[in-house]
Amino acid sequence: MSGKKIVIIGGVAAGASAAAKARRCDEEASIVVFEKGKDISYATCGLPYYLSGVIASRKKLLVTKASFFEKRFQVSVRTQHEVTTIDRQNSMVEYIDHATGTTGWEPYDRLIIAPGSSPLIPPIPGTDLPFVYTLKTLEDTDRIHQHLNERKPTKAVVIGAGLIGLETAENLIRLGIEVSVVEMASHILPFMDREMSDMLRDHTAQDGLNYYLSDAVTAIRQTGDQGIVETKNGEILKADLVIMAAGIKPNIELAQEAGLTIGEAGGIVVDKYMQTNDPAIYAAGDCVETINLVTGKPMIFPMGAAANKQGRAAGANAVGRNIKVKGFTGTVIVKLFKHTSAKTGLSEREALAEGYKPYLSYVLTLHHAGYYPGGKDIRVKTICDNDTGRILGAQVIGQEGVDKRIDILATAIYAKMDLEDLMHLDLSYAPPYSSARDPIFVSGAVGQNFYAGEWSPISPGELHTQLKTEKNTVLLDVRTKREVQKTGVIPQAIHIPIDELRERIDELDKTRNLVLYCAIGLRSYLGFRILKMNGFNHIKALSGGIGCWTYPLETYIGG
Amino acid sequence: MSGKKIVIIGGVAAGASAAAKARRCDEEASIVVFEKGKDISYATCGLPYYLSGVIASRKKLLVTKASFFEKRFQVSVRTQHEVTTIDRQNSMVEYIDHATGTTGWEPYDRLIIAPGSSPLIPPIPGTDLPFVYTLKTLEDTDRIHQHLNERKPTKAVVIGAGLIGLETAENLIRLGIEVSVVEMASHILPFMDREMSDMLRDHTAQDGLNYYLSDAVTAIRQTGDQGIVETKNGEILKADLVIMAAGIKPNIELAQEAGLTIGEAGGIVVDKYMQTNDPAIYAAGDCVETINLVTGKPMIFPMGAAANKQGRAAGANAVGRNIKVKGFTGTVIVKLFKHTSAKTGLSEREALAEGYKPYLSYVLTLHHAGYYPGGKDIRVKTICDNDTGRILGAQVIGQEGVDKRIDILATAIYAKMDLEDLMHLDLSYAPPYSSARDPIFVSGAVGQNFYAGEWSPISPGELHTQLKTEKNTVLLDVRTKREVQKTGVIPQAIHIPIDELRERIDELDKTRNLVLYCAIGLRSYLGFRILKMNGFNHIKALSGGIGCWTYPLETYIGG
Repeated sequence: MSGKKIVIIGGVAAGASAAAKARRCDEEASIVVFEKGKDISYATCGLPYYLSGVIASRKKLLVTKASFFEKRFQVSVRTQHEVTTIDRQNSMVEYIDHATGTTGWEPYDRLIIAPGSSPLIPPIPGTDLPFVYTLKTLEDTDRIHQHLNERKPTKAVVIGAGLIGLETAENLIRLGIEVSVVEMASHILPFMDREMSDMLRDHTAQDGLNYYLSDAVTAIRQTGDQGIVETKNGEILKADLVIMAAGIKPNIELAQEAGLTIGEAGGIVVDKYMQTNDPAIYAAGDCVETINLVTGKPMIFPMGAAANKQGRAAGANAVGRNIKVKGFTGTVIVKLFKHTSAKTGLSEREALAEGYKPYLSYVLTLHHAGYYPGGKDIRVKTICDNDTGRILGAQVIGQEGVDKRIDILATAIYAKMDLEDLMHLDLSYAPPYSSARDPIFVSGAVGQNFYAGEWSPISPGELHTQLKTEKNTVLLDVRTKREVQKTGVIPQAIHIPIDELRERIDELDKTRNLVLYCAIGLRSYLGFRILKMNGFNHIKALSGGIGCWTYPLETYIGG
Repeated sequence: MSGKKIVIIGGVAAGASAAAKARRCDEEASIVVFEKGKDISYATCGLPYYLSGVIASRKKLLVTKASFFEKRFQVSVRTQHEVTTIDRQNSMVEYIDHATGTTGWEPYDRLIIAPGSSPLIPPIPGTDLPFVYTLKTLEDTDRIHQHLNERKPTKAVVIGAGLIGLETAENLIRLGIEVSVVEMASHILPFMDREMSDMLRDHTAQDGLNYYLSDAVTAIRQTGDQGIVETKNGEILKADLVIMAAGIKPNIELAQEAGLTIGEAGGIVVDKYMQTNDPAIYAAGDCVETINLVTGKPMIFPMGAAANKQGRAAGANAVGRNIKVKGFTGTVIVKLFKHTSAKTGLSEREALAEGYKPYLSYVLTLHHAGYYPGGKDIRVKTICDNDTGRILGAQVIGQEGVDKRIDILATAIYAKMDLEDLMHLDLSYAPPYSSARDPIFVSGAVGQNFYAGEWSPISPGELHTQLKTEKNTVLLDVRTKREVQKTGVIPQAIHIPIDELRERIDELDKTRNLVLYCAIGLRSYLGFRILKMNGFNHIKALSGGIGCWTYPLETYIGG
C-alpha cells in the first residue's frame, strides 16, 4: 500500500470507478474526488428514458450517492467543485467551490483526469434561448424534465441523429410530442453504413420520427410564444423544445493547459495503463484516446462501459497496480421503438478509408427458428478483409436478438477471427433463441462459399453502381410469382422462379452480365450454382437478397 | 463436377443438408436419399412445442416436403425406405420399402450415413403399454398428439430430466396436465453442475413440475383404466401418459455391421471431413463422434445445429470438396417456463475428470442495467484452468439474456481465451440490453482479481466442504441488517455490515479462517480487501454471494 494522495477530477463513470478501485487496492491512500455537478456516479445512458418515464424515478439514475460513496470507500467527495488548473510543477490542482464561490488548492501524489465530454453546440444563433437544451448531464435532464412538466411542449426539434439524439427523440414521442430530427449527414446514425441505416430510418419514420437529412439548422428563433427552427434547406420547423445532440467533444482543456499530450483524434493521450505523458497523471473516460482494436489507431470512444473499464484501470494503476486496457472494437447499440441497431469494428466506409478492399456479406434470416412463433427478421452485414478473410466490422439490425449477434461478432473481432470461423462457432440453439442455422453461422457459411469460389456475390451498393455503369447487366429474379407480385422487382429484372430455372435455362444469354437475386439470398445462390455449372461465367448473386436492397422497386408485369 | 452416384441414408437434419449441399456443389451428381420415416427435413427441436400448441400446426415443423425437395434439388427422395445392409465390397446398399414390403439394392459411388439416433428404452416392464411413448421423430409426436386429443390425459410421467424430457414436461403442463419427472441422477439436466441445476429445479418446481430425483422407474403397469409408474424409491405414480426421455443412442448398427470403425464414445468414427475409415463412405449427425474443442477428444453431440453442419460438409466432400468440421464446444440451451439454462464447454465435474484443477467463478448480476425497468437476475458460472486461466466451460441461468452470454462464452472458448480476456471484450451496452458492467465483463474482472492475487474466492461447493472439515471456519455476512433478516444467513454466520467493517474490525479474530459473503459477491470482495490490508491472512470470499448458495439458510437472530 502506498498511503498516497490520489486526486480525481470527475465523479461520474470513469472517476467513480477509479476512486472505488483505488480504495479496493489501497486502504491507506487518501482519495479526493472533485465533481463539477451536484451528483456523482449517475447513469448517463439512462437519461433519455427518464424524460418519458420509462425510468420512472430520478433516484434510479443515481448509481450511488456521494454520502454513501464516502462512507463505503472512505473517499472525500466534493460535488459542485470544479478543478480549474493543474499545476504539474507543484503537483496541485486549483478548484472553485460553486456552492460557496471559494477557491483552493489540493495537492496530489497521483492525479486522475476524468472530466468526461461536453455537447457540441452548433455555431448558430439562438442556442441560448430558454427552450433549447443539451442532454449530457443529470442536471441537463432535470432542466428538460422541468420544461416538459411546466410547458407541455407539443413540437420538438432534435438536432443530430446520433445515439443521444435518436434515443431522446424516441422518448419525446412516447410523451406524445411531435418530433423532427435534423441531421447534417445523409443518413441517421452516421457511424453505420448508409444502406443499413436507411432501413432503420424507414422503420423509425413509421414510428413517428420526421427526418430532415442532409440538412443543418441555421438558426433557432422565438416569435412571440412560438419557437422556430430554420434549416439550410429552407425548412421552418415549429418547436417549443429543441434538443441539441450534435455530438460531443472531450473535455481536454485542463490537460491541454497543463501541457499534457493531446492526440490527433482530439483526446488526451494515454498508454495502455491509462498513464499520460506525465507519470504522476492518469486519465480515463470520454476525455482520452483509446486504441481501436481493428486498426490499432487511437480513437475517441465516449461510451459508458469504456469509461468504467478505463477508470478502474486508472484507479488501480495510480496506487501501483498494472492493469491494462487493451482498447475497444467500437461496439455501439441503440434501441429505437421496436428496432435495434448495432455496430462493431469498422464500417464499410471506415474499412475503405483504412485502405482495405472489403468483402461484404449481407445475411437476412429470422432471429430464431421459423417454425417457432415470433421469429423476426434480423439483418447482419459483415465487413471483411478481402485478402485475408479477417472480420473488420459488422452491423446488425432487427427487432430481437441484435445484441446477441453483435456481441458474438465483437468477441470474434477481438479474437481476430476470419469470416469462416463464424461457421465453426458452436452457438446455442433451441427454438426460442436461434435456429439450426443462426445468422452468424450463415454469415460464416456464405463467407466460406465466397472464399472457396463457390459464388460471386454483389453487394447492394455495388449492384447500384453496376446498373448505372454496365449496360450489359441483366437482373434475374428467381423468387416465386407470388412474392414478385407482392413486393415488385428491381427495375428491369426478368423473372424465372428458381424451380423452373433448369428447364428454362436456354432463355438466358451467357454473354450478358447476369445478377441473380431472391428474397434473402439463398435461392439466388442455388441459382448461381445451377447456372455456373451450366457454363455461365458472367454471373453474380445479390448478397442478402431483395430484403437488403433499399432502393426503389417497380411493379412487376408479366410472366 | 463428378456425375457421381451419391446415396444418403437418412433425410432429416444431416441427410437433407448433405443432399442439398451435394447438389449445390455438383449439378451432375445423381443423388438418392433413403428415409425410414414418412417425412424428411423436419424440425426435431420443435416437436415438444407442437404437443402444447405453442407451434400450432404440424406443417410448421416440416422444413421442406419430399416433393419440393426433389424438385428444387433434383434429388430422388425415398421415404419409408429403410436401408438394411451396406455392402462395401460391391458399393451397394440394400433397402426395404415399408410401404410395399419390397426390397432392393442401390449402388453408390459415395455413401453418406445419417440415420440419426434412437431413444434409449429403459429395460423395465411395461414400456410397450399403449400410453407409453418416446418423443424422437415426427411420427412419435403424431402418436402422442393423437393420444392427447383422444384420451385427454390428466397425469403424465416423464422418464428422464434431460433436454427432451423437460421440454416435453413443460409443454404437457401448458395443457393442464399434472407432470412428474423421474430422473436417475441427483439433479436435473445432468450435464450441468449440481448447484446450477438445483436453482433451475427450484424454479421449475414452482412452475409445476414434480421431481423424483435419484430415483428410477422400475415398472410401468396398467390396472383397469389406470396407468401406474413404480420407482426404485417406492413411489407409485398415476399416469395416463408416460414419455420415455432417458437419453439417446446413435444409430450405428448399419455402420458396425459393415465393419466401419466405431469409437469409444459409441459413434461412427469420422475425420474432420466427415469421412469414415472407408474413403467412399461419409457419416454425419447424431450417429458420429465429433471432436470436443476443449478436450480434443471425441464425443457424441446429438444437436440439430451440429447435424446440419456435419451434413453440409459430408455432402460437399462426397462430391469432391474439402470442407472441415472442426468440432464443437458442446453448447446446449433449454428454455423452461420463464427460465433459461445453458452450458458450453466442460462442466466443473468434466473439468475435474479431465485432470484440470479448475478455478470457478460465480457471478450474479442483472441481465441489463439496474436503472432500466425489467432487469432480471442472471447467473454465470465459469470454469477455468487454474494454471493458465484458459476458459474450459461455462453455465448460465436466468430469465433473459442467457442465450447471449452463453454464445459469447462459446465464442471465447472457441478462440481459446483466458478468463481475463472477457474483461477486454467490447460488448454492446445500452440500458435495455446490458449494463456498463455486463456479467461477462464482471466474470473477467473477478477473474483478473483472482489471478492477480487480489482476492481468494471460495466456491459454494468448497465452502460446503470447508464447513464440514475445518472447524476453525468463521462465516462473516457483510450485508445490511435488512437483507439478513429477509433471507436468513448461512448457518453460524456472524454479521457485520460492510459499512461498519472498518470500525468493528477488532471484533474479528485474525487466527480464524474467515469466509466473507454478501448478496452477490461485490461487498464481500470489498470486505476481503479491507481485511487483507489490515493484516488478515486466513480469509476467503464466497464467489457469487449468497445468491449462488443453494444450501439451506437459517434465520438470523441478533445484532
